[in-house]
Amino acid sequence: MTARAQLWQGGLDFTLIDIPLPELNTDELLVELTAATICGSDRHTVEGRRSSPCPSILGHEGVGVVVASRRATVPVGTRVVFSVTAVCGTCAMCTRGLTAKCTTVMKAGHEEYSSPWPLSGTYASHIHVVAGQEVVEVPDSVSDGAASTAGCAVATVMAVIEAAGDLSGKTVLVNGVGMLGLIACAAARGHGAAEVIGCDPNESSSSIAHGVVDRLVRTVGDVKVDVVLELSGARQGVIDSVAALKVGGIAVLAGSVTPTKPINLDPEWLVRGWRTITGVHNYEPRHIKQAVDFLVTFGSVLPWGRILGGPIPLADLPIAFAHPDGAMRTIVVP
Amino acid sequence: MTARAQLWQGGLDFTLIDIPLPELNTDELLVELTAATICGSDRHTVEGRRSSPCPSILGHEGVGVVVASRRATVPVGTRVVFSVTAVCGTCAMCTRGLTAKCTTVMKAGHEEYSSPWPLSGTYASHIHVVAGQEVVEVPDSVSDGAASTAGCAVATVMAVIEAAGDLSGKTVLVNGVGMLGLIACAAARGHGAAEVIGCDPNESSSSIAHGVVDRLVRTVGDVKVDVVLELSGARQGVIDSVAALKVGGIAVLAGSVTPTKPINLDPEWLVRGWRTITGVHNYEPRHIKQAVDFLVTFGSVLPWGRILGGPIPLADLPIAFAHPDGAMRTIVVP
Repeated sequence: MTARAQLWQGGLDFTLIDIPLPELNTDELLVELTAATICGSDRHTVEGRRSSPCPSILGHEGVGVVVASRRATVPVGTRVVFSVTAVCGTCAMCTRGLTAKCTTVMKAGHEEYSSPWPLSGTYASHIHVVAGQEVVEVPDSVSDGAASTAGCAVATVMAVIEAAGDLSGKTVLVNGVGMLGLIACAAARGHGAAEVIGCDPNESSSSIAHGVVDRLVRTVGDVKVDVVLELSGARQGVIDSVAALKVGGIAVLAGSVTPTKPINLDPEWLVRGWRTITGVHNYEPRHIKQAVDFLVTFGSVLPWGRILGGPIPLADLPIAFAHPDGAMRTIVVP
Repeated sequence: MTARAQLWQGGLDFTLIDIPLPELNTDELLVELTAATICGSDRHTVEGRRSSPCPSILGHEGVGVVVASRRATVPVGTRVVFSVTAVCGTCAMCTRGLTAKCTTVMKAGHEEYSSPWPLSGTYASHIHVVAGQEVVEVPDSVSDGAASTAGCAVATVMAVIEAAGDLSGKTVLVNGVGMLGLIACAAARGHGAAEVIGCDPNESSSSIAHGVVDRLVRTVGDVKVDVVLELSGARQGVIDSVAALKVGGIAVLAGSVTPTKPINLDPEWLVRGWRTITGVHNYEPRHIKQAVDFLVTFGSVLPWGRILGGPIPLADLPIAFAHPDGAMRTIVVP
């Protein structure tokens, strides 16, 4: 038995290969994928704007059915999603509850092909789920395309929402209404926000967001809010987001994952205004469980028809990278 | 019946006056003070570094016994401390739980003598406690000098500790080991911190702190911690404190209540490190209750003999301002 996978060899160079299925160790699973989705970070990798081990099987968003299991809690036949990170659970970071920063973390879709975990990516017929990866069952009510995003985009937003604290009755600004921003808008509403304002200079992004926000703006301007969820990562976006905080407000920054010049912060303004600025990167195991719950409960409010492109066959993956279809996520079917 | 009070008339100009005791409205109390303490902010006011209504009765730290009451929960004879702020409880800030930012806030020791609340300060024989001020009973086990600090210094530290979140097992840096810093060190230990590091360039401050910290440093240097409680307010102190944060760390800024140049903040560093910077200013009613509980449980670890100067009689207050005794708090007895 073999798996079929797209082996990334740098740039736009992919090769469709057959590789042996792994022998499973304790707590491991073999999942036959029914869909993967192309995350923007993989586009950055392929375009050379982000470094990743090479050659490797990319892809870290996916959904599938367990076809072999050595994890008692996840029997064969279960439809599942899985976390990006595989963590030790015992290091100083893990024991402090920061498993995303595990000192020996491995990541799905980020491991070299010659490593002990070659079949780690979702651009393949199967993924080898290892010990230390969280696995969550997905109800049939959630489509393959939506479910595939749970383990990266949706789970990250769940971590952002948690960091923002109680949203009930609050005014929330979501800065950057791409994939994460859309989910954040819907989640903020789901958590009882009184008003959700989406901000994006890009007309097509904001047009998609109409159904999940109360108000759309192109720039933050003089908007003042209780909570900002900053997902654009743009330096000016961070500056505007922080400046939008009312007294007692909190800004959750999650988009800033590339270097920028620093921003100015006025300590007295922060102190006298009881304001908070907090960073979120990746997510914890509980957040992928929350992501699936979110998709079950609130997923239907998202405009999936406009979010998702494809489906394309796995063989066409190089074309999908070379010629993006403009969708936030393109579905890849093995 | 009259109260005796030091009327501040600007600079070092005080006049000892007798003023009529107030008629009490619903929820109001008359407290006969047994001690007040001179907070550093009053020294700043008198030295012209901080503006405050004038003429007025200064002093916002005090303890005393209720001698007249129209608040059913606080009968005559109760030994009490009281909050600095008198709040409406109904404005947008109060209903959001930010009573410290009440839109019609009044403050003990900060109200003009010609206002409706002339007897608001603690440099007097009596204080008129008004509706919207929190009042907490103080057990006899807490000395007058220690109790007097509950309503300002200790309560503020309780707000800082709350903002820092769970401290158990954490490494905590307290930057600035003055009055608030000493209390913060003791409170961090009381909340289960694994190691409390005090940082103060001032030798006499840090020598007082020996018994309440695990380690003393003169500069932050390359110390890295989970939690920083920044109480110095110095711009460099804020910069060093933020830089000391480990992954997942939180810096609570509370000392920065005067203007400084902004500091630089790297958004990517904050995001990838799940770091948090939060400001705290003043406190909420629950924190003065916590302050009294803290003094009962942990107050004995603080070196009160070195913290407190005096007692001096109320008549000598102008001398105490003109010629500070070097103590962190000087006790004033009516």
